[in-house]
Amino acid sequence: MKSPVGEVNPPPRILLGPGPSCVDARVYRALLAPMLGHLDPDFLRIMEETQVLLRRLFGTENRLTFPVSGTGSAGMETAMMNCLEAGETAVITVAGFFGTRLADMARRVGAEVIELKAPAGLPVDPQQAREAARGKKIKVLGVTHGETSTGALHDLDAFRQVADECGALLVVDAVATAGGIPLRVDAQRLDVCFTGSQKCLSAPPGLAPFTANPRVEEAIRQRRTRPPSWYFDLTHIMKYWGGERTYHHTAPISMVYALREALRVVDEEGLEARWERHRRNTQALVTGLEAMGLEMLTPPPQRMITVTGVKAPPGIDAGKIRRRLLEEFNIEIAGGLGELKGKIWRIGLMGASCTQNNVLLLLAALEKCLAEEGFKLSPGAGVAAVARP
Amino acid sequence: MKSPVGEVNPPPRILLGPGPSCVDARVYRALLAPMLGHLDPDFLRIMEETQVLLRRLFGTENRLTFPVSGTGSAGMETAMMNCLEAGETAVITVAGFFGTRLADMARRVGAEVIELKAPAGLPVDPQQAREAARGKKIKVLGVTHGETSTGALHDLDAFRQVADECGALLVVDAVATAGGIPLRVDAQRLDVCFTGSQKCLSAPPGLAPFTANPRVEEAIRQRRTRPPSWYFDLTHIMKYWGGERTYHHTAPISMVYALREALRVVDEEGLEARWERHRRNTQALVTGLEAMGLEMLTPPPQRMITVTGVKAPPGIDAGKIRRRLLEEFNIEIAGGLGELKGKIWRIGLMGASCTQNNVLLLLAALEKCLAEEGFKLSPGAGVAAVARP
Repeated sequence: MKSPVGEVNPPPRILLGPGPSCVDARVYRALLAPMLGHLDPDFLRIMEETQVLLRRLFGTENRLTFPVSGTGSAGMETAMMNCLEAGETAVITVAGFFGTRLADMARRVGAEVIELKAPAGLPVDPQQAREAARGKKIKVLGVTHGETSTGALHDLDAFRQVADECGALLVVDAVATAGGIPLRVDAQRLDVCFTGSQKCLSAPPGLAPFTANPRVEEAIRQRRTRPPSWYFDLTHIMKYWGGERTYHHTAPISMVYALREALRVVDEEGLEARWERHRRNTQALVTGLEAMGLEMLTPPPQRMITVTGVKAPPGIDAGKIRRRLLEEFNIEIAGGLGELKGKIWRIGLMGASCTQNNVLLLLAALEKCLAEEGFKLSPGAGVAAVARP
Repeated sequence: MKSPVGEVNPPPRILLGPGPSCVDARVYRALLAPMLGHLDPDFLRIMEETQVLLRRLFGTENRLTFPVSGTGSAGMETAMMNCLEAGETAVITVAGFFGTRLADMARRVGAEVIELKAPAGLPVDPQQAREAARGKKIKVLGVTHGETSTGALHDLDAFRQVADECGALLVVDAVATAGGIPLRVDAQRLDVCFTGSQKCLSAPPGLAPFTANPRVEEAIRQRRTRPPSWYFDLTHIMKYWGGERTYHHTAPISMVYALREALRVVDEEGLEARWERHRRNTQALVTGLEAMGLEMLTPPPQRMITVTGVKAPPGIDAGKIRRRLLEEFNIEIAGGLGELKGKIWRIGLMGASCTQNNVLLLLAALEKCLAEEGFKLSPGAGVAAVARP
């Protein structure tokens, strides 16, 4: 019988949005490795190797380091569900969409949530956290390292200091930063940190690398109640990904192969070199955009590098430009969310997408579209000449 | 810098456990399709096509039909979290490990749970459900269609009748049965049904196809509280997989490609033909096993076909036989869980793993191992001769 649906045949997009990023060819190859059972001794070895590589990515010795079987949001939820119980208090940076999500998750667990708001495009000032926490018993200080919905970056070391002052666990959402921006879990004493497979790691979406330190393990042991989700309950997951390898749920085997290979690619490039590549290419992008006469949403010291928020100039239909880039050039960039809808573009340069060629191509294509849509480009040298990675 | 970990290189296992099953070559190919953004118009079309195919698999017109971004257990949790609120009552069949899990999930939501137990290897009698529900307000009747930990099958039509009598939503765990055993969501009036991508569908693990009817949608609209999990909250997921395509979380893009292709394979074979293939090959397997002198755990009318529980004969080390099959023949079968540990083998014939050749190979390899371990095989014809698919 013929299926009413044909073979899958997506166009070859250049992914320069806030994720997913382009997948490395080596990672595709790893997806094809033969399927194993989730308790096969060969898969258990592959799990261990993946954990070794994840510890290198995060810069940690944490025993509890593994990929959550879901996308980045599953990592967020694992953090909130396990670190918080009903009645406890969390202070959370809300500099945009993903901070709001983290706060929502904490509230669903029954926690009291103090939201720290920031103006659109800016990060939360750590001093706000200090003042909000004063005199209260805070269990968790939740910080979105890079707020992907705007491009604002939070200063983790400053928040670590606040967490120390109030004795809170520091939970860091590094979904769009780990592997692209300097981050060292142990050196910076992040209690929990998680990321997504599809951002700076350039594997397909579907896994959320996660790490938590012994202090968090102890806090979990001290819980009065169980987390409301079985799937995200770390006491069980720890037994599968920890020493015992007790069956919890079937791991997404092929995705683990893919993540493992993506982490090998990170290792071979070297973390420092990778961070520098992200810095250099994004610097070139911003130089080129500014040379066109465009303005960035976030001022330089607070910009997250891996995702850049760019203001759409007055009179230009931001959505139309995005559609043209997609349809005419196969380039994906993203628009704004919530109050920033139609007002900004979000350009991601992450993992395998973060190349000099992609920067030049995007600048050239954007320049063409903007000119044709009637935007008066700044006079002077062509953008390609300015954008020197 | 050289990574401390080499290229992934798993052995080519023949997967005859309770899942994952072997992945169809066409499905591997689909995994390689270029990555798309999760809001790309081309991906939205691919989502729609996947939903069309899922409705055909489930035999349903349900609008709310989509793959949960997690493994089978994520489908279970989505069902329990959305259909139940704290203080409500659920009646759940506990014929083994997976019934226990479903009950655990319901309890975490704060529901009162009435567990219906069955002796090892047998399904729960629907009459038990009728008696347990008498005089109570039951919100959910949860039934494990096939209990993968033993191989027992529940009679869905009988449980539907009980659910009708007490006005409960019928929630069916078809993780290891959908696509392998007759199941028609609309005709059998299952309110919620979910499965796993890695069982009878032969895609890699990582997605949980899920469907719920308008009655469930209405029940969700009537909830007094939000589900404790954001990731599994159907009111949000419905907006992404429903008509609006509002961003929720990043879908596991490559896994959706794989599932879509696996469903095309199902379509081309035809559901009826596929069910018949599973029946025929499992019949051949059982004939062969019995010819050797082995005994099945579950009597024929209550056997689930896709996974068969086989008693390990006295004096035989069940674990050693499994290890030999794996190490000498690259064949994976599973052992028992909980009280059945060391007492049974579980043999799965699902999806691409369910072939005549695999039946013959397993029988021959098992016969060799058993003979060498000192088990007295039944006299008479060789098993291969008896096992006629």
